[in-house]
Order: sequence, then structure tokens, then C-alpha cells
Amino acid sequence: MTVKSREIRLKSRPKGMPAAENFELAVTDLPDPADGEILVRNVWMSVDPYMRGRMTDRKSYIPPFQLGKAMEGGAVGEVIASNNPAFSVGDYVVGFDGGWKEYYLSSGRGLMKVDPAMAPLSAYLGVLGMPGMTAYVGLMRIGELKEGDTVLVSAAAGAVGSIACQIARARGCRVIGIAGGEGKCAWLKSELGVDETVDYKAAADFQALQAAFDKACPGGVDVYFENVGGDLLTAALNVMKPFGRIVMCGLISVYNAETPQPGPWNLFHVVAKRLKMQGFIVSDHNDVLPQFTADMAGWLKEGRIKYKETVYEGIEKAPEAFLGLFSGANTGKMLVRLGPDRRE
Amino acid sequence: MTVKSREIRLKSRPKGMPAAENFELAVTDLPDPADGEILVRNVWMSVDPYMRGRMTDRKSYIPPFQLGKAMEGGAVGEVIASNNPAFSVGDYVVGFDGGWKEYYLSSGRGLMKVDPAMAPLSAYLGVLGMPGMTAYVGLMRIGELKEGDTVLVSAAAGAVGSIACQIARARGCRVIGIAGGEGKCAWLKSELGVDETVDYKAAADFQALQAAFDKACPGGVDVYFENVGGDLLTAALNVMKPFGRIVMCGLISVYNAETPQPGPWNLFHVVAKRLKMQGFIVSDHNDVLPQFTADMAGWLKEGRIKYKETVYEGIEKAPEAFLGLFSGANTGKMLVRLGPDRRE
Repeated sequence: MTVKSREIRLKSRPKGMPAAENFELAVTDLPDPADGEILVRNVWMSVDPYMRGRMTDRKSYIPPFQLGKAMEGGAVGEVIASNNPAFSVGDYVVGFDGGWKEYYLSSGRGLMKVDPAMAPLSAYLGVLGMPGMTAYVGLMRIGELKEGDTVLVSAAAGAVGSIACQIARARGCRVIGIAGGEGKCAWLKSELGVDETVDYKAAADFQALQAAFDKACPGGVDVYFENVGGDLLTAALNVMKPFGRIVMCGLISVYNAETPQPGPWNLFHVVAKRLKMQGFIVSDHNDVLPQFTADMAGWLKEGRIKYKETVYEGIEKAPEAFLGLFSGANTGKMLVRLGPDRRE
Repeated sequence: MTVKSREIRLKSRPKGMPAAENFELAVTDLPDPADGEILVRNVWMSVDPYMRGRMTDRKSYIPPFQLGKAMEGGAVGEVIASNNPAFSVGDYVVGFDGGWKEYYLSSGRGLMKVDPAMAPLSAYLGVLGMPGMTAYVGLMRIGELKEGDTVLVSAAAGAVGSIACQIARARGCRVIGIAGGEGKCAWLKSELGVDETVDYKAAADFQALQAAFDKACPGGVDVYFENVGGDLLTAALNVMKPFGRIVMCGLISVYNAETPQPGPWNLFHVVAKRLKMQGFIVSDHNDVLPQFTADMAGWLKEGRIKYKETVYEGIEKAPEAFLGLFSGANTGKMLVRLGPDRRE
């Protein structure tokens, strides 16, 4: 028996902002799993900003997508056929390269079984998955978060940022969230318990943006969790306290730039204020996974961490979901539902 | 009895590059030391790039110089009158605000006695003083230097850079020095034992500069000791190895800028390569002083650290010496000799 699986392929490499024409929907026939293999039917797939980097043909910490081949990414699915004794039909698994496809064959390497009773399946792509752990590692290990710190978070209504805000709150910190639009800012305050917000889209120019930062952070900032870059980083450098830490998680403002984007003109603050600015990639920190899972499951159970999802239906909508990340179409985790969760 | 002391005052605040007209020479009459005070006759004074920041009226880690008042800085001098039991006439002392004056009165607070038998007096403003300790703290504590690291140093022929190069060599590292001009580069290789050099003044444009970096650092860089900024930082980011450390010691390229200077356009490397970029101010690390002094005195004795000085004679030349820092007029430590060392 073969399975017809729809998948999204990289048709052409984008220059600047990606568009629908860079993707194409294709159908493949998957054979039965060979010896040692399993066949997974995806229920949820993730779209994440870092995938933009993989659409460009350059050397980085992760290889580029190949032209004409299916893209890859995080997905949660159900094992529907198994020739591997470590997996049984009916197991749910999460992995980092099965995404952008309805079904995939795998040796099982890199796949992790998930407990569908502990949390909704989609949570393993968000709050209990890579974005949640990114927020956790970034704040705890890179940001050296301490109780009482003032924490500033960019893209605060995004998948990582919204969790970072709440982890910092749960650890007794004052939290200022930067997001685009009144709706997101209101959600951050009313639902997530963020102390102050900056609506960067309401600032007409850099001066107005800086004024909003100054007003929201009158006592300065100990930890800046950076997902965006550009003017937000410049404004943040101006409000950092001496000995502050800047957690360099992502720079979405430059991912689509066609020409080099100049960095902050006030980098001298790094010297004068003795700042530490440090980049990280969450997969280097897998030793934290057990601690993260224990803490996060506890926080979820206690209701100290909430999450929101923005959901598109069907693999044909995956490019649209992905493109929406760059216009801020999501609040919380952006997901694509690829098929039914049979347990529902 | 009063002592006539010549001093350099800040006459006006520079816009952009400072010039002779921003300084004025004045004479003051110093009375006998009051109870608890000492009178110091300076032998050497230091000029350092950080002083440019203090000429501008803005809040920073150290207060600005006051208009119409004498400037301040490091100096080594001889106690010639004492009303303080902790100091005797004939003691030599180094301090951080007695400079830019031939004589000064002090309560003794912040002054440290130096041993004129251990090293020439001027060394306490260079290799055994603040610049030497800056190189040491920057590499060891901020840069987490490890044996076998590849270390890149900007302003490598300067007071701090030339010591940083040699400390890294003494610790078994491969060292690449960036300096302006063939003479400095030749000195770095032949005298200081630097493995490779980049003559940034020989590069016609950024592309040529990057090519020189690529050629000098084919295996990448673990630790970049940054004194300059601008294009050098951009080029360095491109050659950093994953998990590299960028020691943010100074950014002389922006100190005289009249308009904001954009930072590096490739800051995303900080994320993708998991770099740590950290600023520091040496005076936060005074706990390292005993270890530094022991190590450095040993290295000097063994001949593993050499140093060079560029000397101007007389306080009236202090502004010229200071201005020379920004055109690279110095090799090694830039100093002004204010009076005789009576022991000579």
C-alpha cells in the first residue's frame, strides 16, 4: 500500500520578503515503511521565523532547504505504520524535520514520543516544544535571569516572546513587552500579566519609539530578550542598565532585508554599560530539556503560563501561515493543522 | 611656600575630532598640603582614548570633564611634601586623576604606592598599569581565553592591544594583530611574536579589508579583542568561529563621530554563531590586580612581554599627545613626561 502525501516544496529562493510563488504544493507516493522505519501522519506543523534563513543558499548553523525538495520543520503526528520496535502504531511523535508534509517516513532518529494526555498535541510545537524551551534557555541560561530583574521582550506576542514574558513573571520579574498593535498589547497586559507594553507600530519615528521605551522602562532594563533587532535593539541599548544582558534569540527585522541593514549606532553602550550580548541556538542546550519540561508542565498546571495559537487549516495554507509571521499575523504560536487528531 | 603648577584645562567641548583649541594651559598656585594631604610632583602622565568620552557632556560610567577646569587622568609622581602619615616624601605613587597637571594635592585616596625598583616608573601607566590590566582582564575574564585559541586583536600596536597580543602568545594562542601601517605590522611580528597581521590602512575598501581578514584568519577566530569598531567589527564578525567571544574594550572609531555611526550590518552572526559580545570597564575588576601584577611581573622578567612607549616632553605637549591617539601617532603606550625622575 502506498500513501499519497501532499507536501510543500521550495520552488525558488526568495529575494527579500518571500511570497507564495516561492512555494509549490506537490504530491508524493510513500511506500510502506522499510525495515526499521515508521510512517507518521502529521496532525500539526509549525512555521517559525528561522525557516526564512533556510530558504537562502548560504552556510549557517543549519543547512539551507534544497530547491525542488520538500521543506522541513517541526511537526507532531501519529505513527500509523511501524517497522521499528521502538515505535508502535498510535504513538504520537514530535520531530524537527517532518513538517511541511502530510505524511513522512522516518528511521525514528530525532523523534520524541509525546504524551497526548499531558497537554494538547499542538503544545509540543509551542509552549512545551522548541519555542517554549527557547524562551526558557534564553532567559535562564543566556540572560542569567534573577528574581526582581526588569525584563524587556521584543515580539512579546509571538510564540517565544509570549512564553518569555510569562516565565519572567513567574520568576518574580517586572516585564515590559514590545508588540505591534493595540490588540496584542492589551492581550499581553490582561491575559499574560505583563506590567507594561510598547506598541512599536504606534511610533511614528525613532524618536517616538525611544520615548515609548523610556516611558515604559523608567528604571532601566536588566535583561532584554531580543527577537527583532533594528530600531528596537537601538532603543533597548539606550535603556539597558549597567551590567545588563541582551539575549540574542533572533533578528526578524533583518531576515528579509535585500540590502545589508546597519546595526545599532549606539553599540558603545555595550562597553560603557558593561553589557553582555549573547546569541544562542536552543538545540545546543538539550541538557536543559528535562528541567524545562518539569518546570513548564508545572507552570501550565498552576495556570501561571497561558498560550494562544493562530491556526491555519490544511497544508496548502502552510506558505500563507509562514508569510504571516513577517507581518505579525499571529498572536502566540503560528500553526498549521494538517489532519485530524483521532482522539478528539 | 606655594608651588606653581602648570595644568591643561578643558577650554571648550569638541564637536567631532578634538583640536588644540579645546585645551588651554594655565598656571595655578598650590598651597602647602593641609592636614591629611600630600603634594605630588608628576613625572609621567598618561593620555588614553577613553578621555575623549569625558570631553563630552553626557552621562556615562565616569563623569565628564568640567569646562574651565583641569582635565584628569592617570599619572605617576613623587611625593614631595606630606601631611599624611601613610605617605612619605620620596614615595612614588600612581593614581587615576592626578594627570594633566605638573603637581597636585591629594588626600591619598585612590593613590597606590609603586615600587620604582621593580620597573621603570612609566610602566605603571602602561604594561603594569591600567592598559596592561585592561588587556589581562579582557582576555582572561571577559574573553575566557583558552590555550590554543585563535585571538584577533584590533589596535594591536596600541597600549592595550600590544599587551593583549603578547598575553595571548604567552598563553599558547595563535595571534593575529590588526594595525595601521607596515611599520606597526612589522613590529608586531618581529618584536612581539604576533603570528599574522592585517594592515587596515592598506585596504582600499571594505571588500579588500575583508579579504585581508579572511587571509589572516583562515581557520576562524575564537576571541576578538575589540578596541576600534566600525568596519573592523563587521569584518571580524564574518571570521568568528561558532561560540566565539568578542571582548568589547573600546570603539575608538566612533569616539569622534559627529553623526551616529551605524553598527555592523552582520550582527545576525551573534545569533547564528552563538557569539558572546561583552563590554567591560577595567576598574570593575580590581580583585584581579594581585594576580595580574604577579603574572605580568613574571612575564616581564622572563622577557615574554615587551613594550614600547611613544613619549612627548612637557605638559604643554599633552594635548598633542592625546590628539595623536586618534591618528595612530603612537606605537605602544602614549605618554607625556612632565618632569625628571630624580633617581635617573
